[in-house]
Amino acid sequence: MRTKTQTPEKKRAIVLLSGGLDSCVTLAVANKEHNVALLHVQYSQRTQPRESMAFHNIANYYHVPEDKILITGLDHFKKIGGSSLTDTKLPIDKGEAETTMPNTYVPFRNTLLLAIAVSWAEVIKAETIFIGAVEQDSPNYPDCRQEYYDVFNQLVDVGTMPSTQIKVVTPLIGMKKFEIVKMGIELNAPLPLTWSCYENNDLACGRCQSCTLRLRAFEDAGYVDKIHYLEKNRRPS
Amino acid sequence: MRTKTQTPEKKRAIVLLSGGLDSCVTLAVANKEHNVALLHVQYSQRTQPRESMAFHNIANYYHVPEDKILITGLDHFKKIGGSSLTDTKLPIDKGEAETTMPNTYVPFRNTLLLAIAVSWAEVIKAETIFIGAVEQDSPNYPDCRQEYYDVFNQLVDVGTMPSTQIKVVTPLIGMKKFEIVKMGIELNAPLPLTWSCYENNDLACGRCQSCTLRLRAFEDAGYVDKIHYLEKNRRPS
Repeated sequence: MRTKTQTPEKKRAIVLLSGGLDSCVTLAVANKEHNVALLHVQYSQRTQPRESMAFHNIANYYHVPEDKILITGLDHFKKIGGSSLTDTKLPIDKGEAETTMPNTYVPFRNTLLLAIAVSWAEVIKAETIFIGAVEQDSPNYPDCRQEYYDVFNQLVDVGTMPSTQIKVVTPLIGMKKFEIVKMGIELNAPLPLTWSCYENNDLACGRCQSCTLRLRAFEDAGYVDKIHYLEKNRRPS
Repeated sequence: MRTKTQTPEKKRAIVLLSGGLDSCVTLAVANKEHNVALLHVQYSQRTQPRESMAFHNIANYYHVPEDKILITGLDHFKKIGGSSLTDTKLPIDKGEAETTMPNTYVPFRNTLLLAIAVSWAEVIKAETIFIGAVEQDSPNYPDCRQEYYDVFNQLVDVGTMPSTQIKVVTPLIGMKKFEIVKMGIELNAPLPLTWSCYENNDLACGRCQSCTLRLRAFEDAGYVDKIHYLEKNRRPS
């Protein structure tokens, strides 16, 4: 079921939409009560082409018009390296998330993405920025924790024009991954259009941490993941 | 007098160097006790070509090697507009800085620049980031105030890997502009290589807020500004 989204009486919000599962469900949440604008940032990660395809498919599903879409590129993550997502010489960490920081961590990435969103929000007078950060069930990235968002919102308060009231919200932050899948299905989010794999641009690898988390989440939620996998990382029996 | 800068025993620092007066003096300060790496961000501002030339001239003066230089581009400020620095349809505000926000304000810009610096600092293990923000004698930009930097440093604490200790420092923040000129001259900073004009890429206009501030600062410091101006905005008599 498709939903018309652009009604003038709703308040404007910006949603950071990578094209992944979490950002898609976040958009489904935001879309209930907001007139959404979408931000998609291309930072030369390995799966950028596939994520951008997912972005466009999801944006089309929600009928978001061109003038409410900002697609922008950053080249410095590729230049500085330090993450297996942007440096193809580093192999992607596989399997379940560990307690240590995986090499898929892109240093201070969410601050970059959110800063672009805040700049845009100041110009288009959006008061809410949605980001699909997940603290539970995620690989220990420091910029996915509630504490980080509390401080970021303080920064927005002191770092923007006095006339603006912008707040970053994280509707999924306390949820387990299977709960996110369930919520997405309840909200008719187009989960088969999303892309989670860190490694491949054609068939999802099924073995990287992101595929593994996604496969577990659908399994635990009791739903079939309709995207195609090269192979599936099975739970140890 | 030129100074050799890259000595291994000094701690590494990143300096944000736009090519302007303040960032050049900040580099002169940082260079006294640090092994400096330089970040230059091109965000499609009107005077980007001239600022980048200033950047390279200053980097050469300090003998900073290529592998300690990161030049990166951002295209979203141009796309979103809202500032006369990036939108050539808006005329640049002229004359003395007012108490209201001038249209040269680029929304949340310093958060972007600093976020790139922090990402790089995590990779190259720099512990200090220098930025030439000036609170006094500047046009009321919210991201040039001490309060903003206090919160930004909290964000760095919570948003980076636990193993990193990165701090943003603002050595000029409490100084008047003429004091910055004096300090630059005392430290042999190459002030004639810097560029401040918001409007032109050839001869400085002498009338925009940035030229006006610079001209007043040299006058009050008792020094001659050796760059060439199209005309000079005289103090009202």
